[in-house]
Amino acid sequence: MEFHFLGTGSGIPSKSRNVSGLAVRFLQRKDIWLFDCGEATQHQLLTSSITLSKISHIFITHLHGDHIYGLPGLLSSRSAQGGQSKLTIYGPEGIKEFIETTFKVSKTTLGYPIDYVIVKDDFKAYEQGITITVKQLDHVIESFAYKLIEDDKPGSLLVDKLKNAGIKPGPIYKKIKEGEQVTLRNGETVHHADYVSSPVKGRQVVIVGDTRPITSLTPFIKNVDLLIHEGTFLDDRREHAKKYGHSTIKEVTHLAKSANVQSLILTHISSRYVDMEKELLSEAEINFPQAIIAYDHMIYKLM
Amino acid sequence: MEFHFLGTGSGIPSKSRNVSGLAVRFLQRKDIWLFDCGEATQHQLLTSSITLSKISHIFITHLHGDHIYGLPGLLSSRSAQGGQSKLTIYGPEGIKEFIETTFKVSKTTLGYPIDYVIVKDDFKAYEQGITITVKQLDHVIESFAYKLIEDDKPGSLLVDKLKNAGIKPGPIYKKIKEGEQVTLRNGETVHHADYVSSPVKGRQVVIVGDTRPITSLTPFIKNVDLLIHEGTFLDDRREHAKKYGHSTIKEVTHLAKSANVQSLILTHISSRYVDMEKELLSEAEINFPQAIIAYDHMIYKLM
Repeated sequence: MEFHFLGTGSGIPSKSRNVSGLAVRFLQRKDIWLFDCGEATQHQLLTSSITLSKISHIFITHLHGDHIYGLPGLLSSRSAQGGQSKLTIYGPEGIKEFIETTFKVSKTTLGYPIDYVIVKDDFKAYEQGITITVKQLDHVIESFAYKLIEDDKPGSLLVDKLKNAGIKPGPIYKKIKEGEQVTLRNGETVHHADYVSSPVKGRQVVIVGDTRPITSLTPFIKNVDLLIHEGTFLDDRREHAKKYGHSTIKEVTHLAKSANVQSLILTHISSRYVDMEKELLSEAEINFPQAIIAYDHMIYKLM
Repeated sequence: MEFHFLGTGSGIPSKSRNVSGLAVRFLQRKDIWLFDCGEATQHQLLTSSITLSKISHIFITHLHGDHIYGLPGLLSSRSAQGGQSKLTIYGPEGIKEFIETTFKVSKTTLGYPIDYVIVKDDFKAYEQGITITVKQLDHVIESFAYKLIEDDKPGSLLVDKLKNAGIKPGPIYKKIKEGEQVTLRNGETVHHADYVSSPVKGRQVVIVGDTRPITSLTPFIKNVDLLIHEGTFLDDRREHAKKYGHSTIKEVTHLAKSANVQSLILTHISSRYVDMEKELLSEAEINFPQAIIAYDHMIYKLM
């Protein structure tokens, strides 16, 4: 999976950070999933390798303007550029009204259909080999985290070992791989586990909307390969963060560490920290030495 | 007046031209008027000298997305940056519904009031020394042109001439300037016109929304100091332009010439003409040698 950070700021755009937008590219497939779509997300894509027609799913964490005001323009441009395939939008109640009213007023028609899926706490879906689960957060309005859980990949057939055992290639290989009970002509039973490597566990990623830090998120993010979490403020503004429903970098790194998260990316950085990446990183590294502070146009590859 | 071209493209943003936005600065005052507000107009302002709180009036020519999708974000950021003064939005029916639904869904509240003024053909208003008149155009949806007519500036008092005539400075000067009948002690009548220069005629500017070229616009733009008109296509795409409710550069320059327009700026250029400014200008110069093709961040000063 490849994560393209299109907007890593919070609230209002600045010269260095746009408002929220994150595109996820799945290397084995052609389609792109987009998480949040603040104003000018389509502009950020102009200088990326991502084309609008490839976006198949959009997931909205919450309805604040800096996370959704880019949607009408991006959807319109996707159509103008010839996008015809269905697009699915996951988001909180209200997302459909926003888009439909906007398109009604601006007399916009699209050349493709939109499916709206309204999410709530503990919502679950399955799309193209990925289980999506949803957890409610603690913000000033309804806000959600999305967890992506890849299907486990089945183990590979150990061909050399089969050949060494005198079992020749043929339809029998497929049966062994799929775990069917196979008996050879000599009466010997072939055990699947002997000739197929262990399944590869699917990767798990959690993308968190705006929120105060909440310990109830711990089971949801436990052991995940990647956590992308807002870290709007430095810890000296903890009370301010709490008041406006946000987290400090220190709070998030503590949470990530206690949940044994493997990799952590902090985003949604307040515009007050222009040119202060060093200070942000210093605070992050206290609890989580490998933490990354996202920046606009950063591409992160999860191996 | 200073015209800041924030977006000079049409339909969808490109790397070189954003969608529509034009800020007008009045040198004698601090406030800014904005004409149309496509997505990322506020982003374009980040690299300009204009601050959001100074925008006092927004005029919307029509409700297509590339002219209004930047409004919710710009209005929100104006509030976040401390803007408290009233903002007036002129626009077609539907503009209020768009903004209010968007703010309702995104739970946005502003720190200042908005006055909505719905415009129609032949609408007229007066704001801060400027008469605003409106003319309906010919687009695929309701679309308008705005004409700004500055008040004539009163003539100046010819002080040296007064002194030479033996009329000494005092409250009498104010009376003469304001055209009151003044009789000197010697019984002589002072004629206003003898001691005050001619009034300076106010400048006239017309800003045109998306439209097919229409000869009925001629009286509206007759002799204006500046016409800012869309010129979406080159003339080889005249039928295409007509179908989608737009003008070709050749058509507009013809119209401007026949209406004796003093200066002409063409904008709303299709994204198909990237790096083709020379071709656009060549077509414009045939009918209107001084025509200007607008580009993003261009500043035009009307003397």
